Amino acid sequence: MSIRVGVVGASVYSGAVAARLLCAHPHFTLAFATSDRLVGEPLDRHLGVPTPAPMAFEPNASAVALGDRADVVLLATSAKVSTELAPTFLEQGKHVVDLSGGFRLEKAGDYARWYGFEHPAISWLSKAHYGLPELYGAPARDGATLVANPGCYPTASLLAIAPLVRAGLVEPTGIVIDAKSGVTGAGRQATEEFSFGEVDEDLRAYKVLSHQHTPEIVRHLSRFADGVRLTFTAHLLPVRRGLMATCYARPRAGTTAAHVQQCLADAYAGRSFVDVVAPDRVSLARVTGTNHARVGATADGDVVIAIGAIDNLLKGAAGQAVQNLNLLFGLDETTGLSHLHRTAP
Amino acid sequence: MSIRVGVVGASVYSGAVAARLLCAHPHFTLAFATSDRLVGEPLDRHLGVPTPAPMAFEPNASAVALGDRADVVLLATSAKVSTELAPTFLEQGKHVVDLSGGFRLEKAGDYARWYGFEHPAISWLSKAHYGLPELYGAPARDGATLVANPGCYPTASLLAIAPLVRAGLVEPTGIVIDAKSGVTGAGRQATEEFSFGEVDEDLRAYKVLSHQHTPEIVRHLSRFADGVRLTFTAHLLPVRRGLMATCYARPRAGTTAAHVQQCLADAYAGRSFVDVVAPDRVSLARVTGTNHARVGATADGDVVIAIGAIDNLLKGAAGQAVQNLNLLFGLDETTGLSHLHRTAP
Amino acid sequence: MSIRVGVVGASVYSGAVAARLLCAHPHFTLAFATSDRLVGEPLDRHLGVPTPAPMAFEPNASAVALGDRADVVLLATSAKVSTELAPTFLEQGKHVVDLSGGFRLEKAGDYARWYGFEHPAISWLSKAHYGLPELYGAPARDGATLVANPGCYPTASLLAIAPLVRAGLVEPTGIVIDAKSGVTGAGRQATEEFSFGEVDEDLRAYKVLSHQHTPEIVRHLSRFADGVRLTFTAHLLPVRRGLMATCYARPRAGTTAAHVQQCLADAYAGRSFVDVVAPDRVSLARVTGTNHARVGATADGDVVIAIGAIDNLLKGAAGQAVQNLNLLFGLDETTGLSHLHRTAP
Amino acid sequence: MSIRVGVVGASVYSGAVAARLLCAHPHFTLAFATSDRLVGEPLDRHLGVPTPAPMAFEPNASAVALGDRADVVLLATSAKVSTELAPTFLEQGKHVVDLSGGFRLEKAGDYARWYGFEHPAISWLSKAHYGLPELYGAPARDGATLVANPGCYPTASLLAIAPLVRAGLVEPTGIVIDAKSGVTGAGRQATEEFSFGEVDEDLRAYKVLSHQHTPEIVRHLSRFADGVRLTFTAHLLPVRRGLMATCYARPRAGTTAAHVQQCLADAYAGRSFVDVVAPDRVSLARVTGTNHARVGATADGDVVIAIGAIDNLLKGAAGQAVQNLNLLFGLDETTGLSHLHRTAP
Repeated sequence: MSIRVGVVGASVYSGAVAARLLCAHPHFTLAFATSDRLVGEPLDRHLGVPTPAPMAFEPNASAVALGDRADVVLLATSAKVSTELAPTFLEQGKHVVDLSGGFRLEKAGDYARWYGFEHPAISWLSKAHYGLPELYGAPARDGATLVANPGCYPTASLLAIAPLVRAGLVEPTGIVIDAKSGVTGAGRQATEEFSFGEVDEDLRAYKVLSHQHTPEIVRHLSRFADGVRLTFTAHLLPVRRGLMATCYARPRAGTTAAHVQQCLADAYAGRSFVDVVAPDRVSLARVTGTNHARVGATADGDVVIAIGAIDNLLKGAAGQAVQNLNLLFGLDETTGLSHLHRTAP
Repeated sequence: MSIRVGVVGASVYSGAVAARLLCAHPHFTLAFATSDRLVGEPLDRHLGVPTPAPMAFEPNASAVALGDRADVVLLATSAKVSTELAPTFLEQGKHVVDLSGGFRLEKAGDYARWYGFEHPAISWLSKAHYGLPELYGAPARDGATLVANPGCYPTASLLAIAPLVRAGLVEPTGIVIDAKSGVTGAGRQATEEFSFGEVDEDLRAYKVLSHQHTPEIVRHLSRFADGVRLTFTAHLLPVRRGLMATCYARPRAGTTAAHVQQCLADAYAGRSFVDVVAPDRVSLARVTGTNHARVGATADGDVVIAIGAIDNLLKGAAGQAVQNLNLLFGLDETTGLSHLHRTAP
Repeated sequence: MSIRVGVVGASVYSGAVAARLLCAHPHFTLAFATSDRLVGEPLDRHLGVPTPAPMAFEPNASAVALGDRADVVLLATSAKVSTELAPTFLEQGKHVVDLSGGFRLEKAGDYARWYGFEHPAISWLSKAHYGLPELYGAPARDGATLVANPGCYPTASLLAIAPLVRAGLVEPTGIVIDAKSGVTGAGRQATEEFSFGEVDEDLRAYKVLSHQHTPEIVRHLSRFADGVRLTFTAHLLPVRRGLMATCYARPRAGTTAAHVQQCLADAYAGRSFVDVVAPDRVSLARVTGTNHARVGATADGDVVIAIGAIDNLLKGAAGQAVQNLNLLFGLDETTGLSHLHRTAP
Repeated sequence: MSIRVGVVGASVYSGAVAARLLCAHPHFTLAFATSDRLVGEPLDRHLGVPTPAPMAFEPNASAVALGDRADVVLLATSAKVSTELAPTFLEQGKHVVDLSGGFRLEKAGDYARWYGFEHPAISWLSKAHYGLPELYGAPARDGATLVANPGCYPTASLLAIAPLVRAGLVEPTGIVIDAKSGVTGAGRQATEEFSFGEVDEDLRAYKVLSHQHTPEIVRHLSRFADGVRLTFTAHLLPVRRGLMATCYARPRAGTTAAHVQQCLADAYAGRSFVDVVAPDRVSLARVTGTNHARVGATADGDVVIAIGAIDNLLKGAAGQAVQNLNLLFGLDETTGLSHLHRTAP
């Protein structure tokens, strides 16, 4: 089986990582890759991996015309662009995996509020499959399928806390998620704000009370409990890759440390990509370079703490996209991902 | 006026920074400095600043004998050692500023539980002045005074959240403090755990639910409200210096963002070392190198977020010690500290 | 004595550091500060230090008009802009300290070749004083004086190797300078190339065989020996501040390690800002945050190695500018610089 | 074909990386792994990769007894230990790949001088194959074979400069190699010197004129030219992985930039693991995570500059060891290494 996958936006970090994974995948073939910045440049040189045949970056504007070459299109574009492109490809009968937030929320109004644009394709919001396999399973392949690939912060947060909410071990209100991400989470940046001189040796919170991943986490926790209320804060870390979400919730009466640990162990028993460990063994260095998440939880009478860590570009973006593609086509979810190992020595 | 200050433990990070500040201080004189690791080595070479006269490090065991040369002794020793040394110096009539946690808690039993040793000088616990000047003012100088210099995490946390607790703007229960510290917060370390290869590009939580700064924060918030319950989590950041505490609390009815911002502004009006800014302008880079804290707060209907950042070795240790010494001797609190400016360019 | 100094370009790293030093200086007063990016913004907030009176950034275009308020103008502008502005201020009778390379080379043709523009004020090239005080002493104050403040790479390189060339201990040909600089050496950058994601964990050589500091080093070594030939290579380090030059030269017959060590010791005996140490004790951490250089040298039969390290923004730019200003006005060269101490704990 | 490989010292960085590569290799099987620090701990947990069957670390003292389980033993031990262990395994008829410097030099006397111990197995020095495949080809498999796996600095240096020496494009005397390595090059370190607080934001030269990789580089360059004289300087970089050698040599008459570029291109034509690029595109970020070296060279009338970069733990240690093992057993040299891709996004 060889499934052809095109990548729109293949020079942004997540798109480049996706293209690289596709080049090394035994069942997928990179059909095309677009990037306005690198039009005409050879792919292998920029990705640092061999391509099956010599390929060059195509202009973004040619993406729709290139759709014919692919069975699936992976969008590493801004939310606004994704909401415009995805329906076009879907109407061509292509499957779409969208790395942006363009189809992760439920209500059109949330886009105006959190993303600052009017959503042009609201009929697709309810049809999109939220691609967090450990919580939602495989996307159904029934005609052209739209997979909304989860955000990096929601992936780490939901993997850590959602099983505890689902099991009723914690109150659904008053949840606090204090999250920290490496710089590549913001994509390639040519701004002073993300220059080495401004990020190195620093830490700062950003978009306090206004981060667009907040409604995404709320929406998906709300599938497991009524009345979810939470606070989400993002911080910028001076590391290239890696993201950690430290989640706090109030325990329901009787919840103990043993309960929450067991709950996570049960939730991920048999899953390839989520490792349940003690909370102080959830670290960036143990996951960066891999498609694995690490999660761990503990509790005392006042609080449940659940910590999740991922590589923001892999399990938080391109790796999870490939995992979703594997599932969409009935492959083992680890196909083309099991050779990844952590970067830390 | 020239006040003679001895430093016990002058080669650990906080002790070395204190010795350096004392060398540059217009009214204090570094009387002696001990370090077993550097016995006999010249001070100026290791501190990188001139000393008034040629001085060498003395052995720690000679500290008590050296007490006669000083009016004040600054202890940059472990909590256990501090609890043994401080009473000796105090009985000699010396003032003591203790950088350790040896005299910050209220009850002897807390030391067994959180520090793992039996406190040998419990009568001093109630007499020690907790040296957080912006909340507790100047230490009274009445005979030999013992100043318990606050911990780095408590300093950042209390400066951010204590005024809001005091003003009744937040509930005293369910407070969450998610804190992140640079590596020097753990002192000089010759362990693999703190080696560059293990810390760089990583982030990890540590001592989850068991960090000894938890009871210190609880104790001091409890001066401002009854029934304080909080959760404190420490994370190790891949930076040398700087510490941030992101604090979450439930708002009392009617509390708004404007209220909490104004509360902090009022609390620190006229104070030299605490700058009140918007929460997303509280960053490590804006405080490291200085004795300043930055704090900022906001709120919505569900949560109050208050963020504090300091240089863990200055406002979180040696700088605050000098500030306390200034106040103890009736000097302007900024004396010998105002030349410090931030490291970031 | 209060000398009024204006800073053109006060929001670039070197200009900001200079403005901050001037604010803390006992004899200089910051007269004005320009920055197009920050027009109207309060200076104290951006510099992180108090200003004598409330001041805001002025537009760069107003610099010439503001000249009247100052006795000296410090230019933190590009080489091209400096060559245009400096003559104007000099003709107004103002002293000028130029941080750019605009007046450091000897021949107009060098500007076309190495800087890519035609020099508009070649008559000033021979009149400019090259402000490396440890080698060239104080600038003469005789009418309006132009100080060409040395480049960061030339400062570290010349301090390490020039005394050995001058003493005839090494051959003037075949000199190799392998230099490494932190990111702030390139100034504030809003480019992907200097983003954290591209610089962190990396090292790369740049402008190989074409760096514009090459002719500057050649010119000034050539004051001490005939026939200088050298190779200079710059590398970009993943650190904020700090620059090291590792210099290699062929020993003249009879030159020993003891000779070169003694030569450096003699060259800087009595100098405040150059510390002579063993070569493996020349490190960034021991100089960043200060106006000090560290230099060290050794030799065997084949090679002389001389290593120099500085903080690129202080001894390599703004600190040396203040040192030059001190000397221009007959002050002790350490005035307003001696409170600086190293950033490393 | 399944070849059984044992790893002695599998918890040091290079040994752990080797063990991980062996676990993922299609034709090698990890037969045993020793580590005193982790005796009894499960391998998969520490390596972050699956092992074929559950395995635990064995004590180092059991290495010889375990030899029977393996066809090849890979030594990630100190040079002194390797010189004791290797002959034992060889006499058992096992092939040995030694990651230490124990068999890289020619003369017994060099060990006393550069490594500080008397070599106990000097008869093996001349029999050892120096495993730099791009220069020396495959090791011959004829009875028990000893492969001296090259040092990290020699690998990067020789790949960059040896072809130019071999081709007579540069003089063999007066070569300067200025090298910079990430921290893992020094192995796991539990010392203050290698703590994050001391390495971060720093750069320092070490073992100036006395680094034990100097005679290794001299020896192997001397296979290509008579009269080699060189200077080698190592610097410690604040990065985890990656090593760069910037090499300077005097051009023979007539040597041009085009000559040296073509020479490298010819030398590595058809080789999988050495990429020839422009010198300013030789960077750590483009090789870390892979077994690739990047090399580039240029020249002017005075100098030839050749730069090489590798991942010190892969092409500089464990990756090259696996490459040598592949060649020893007649496999394609990229087997089990081609899935590696760079860490940088």
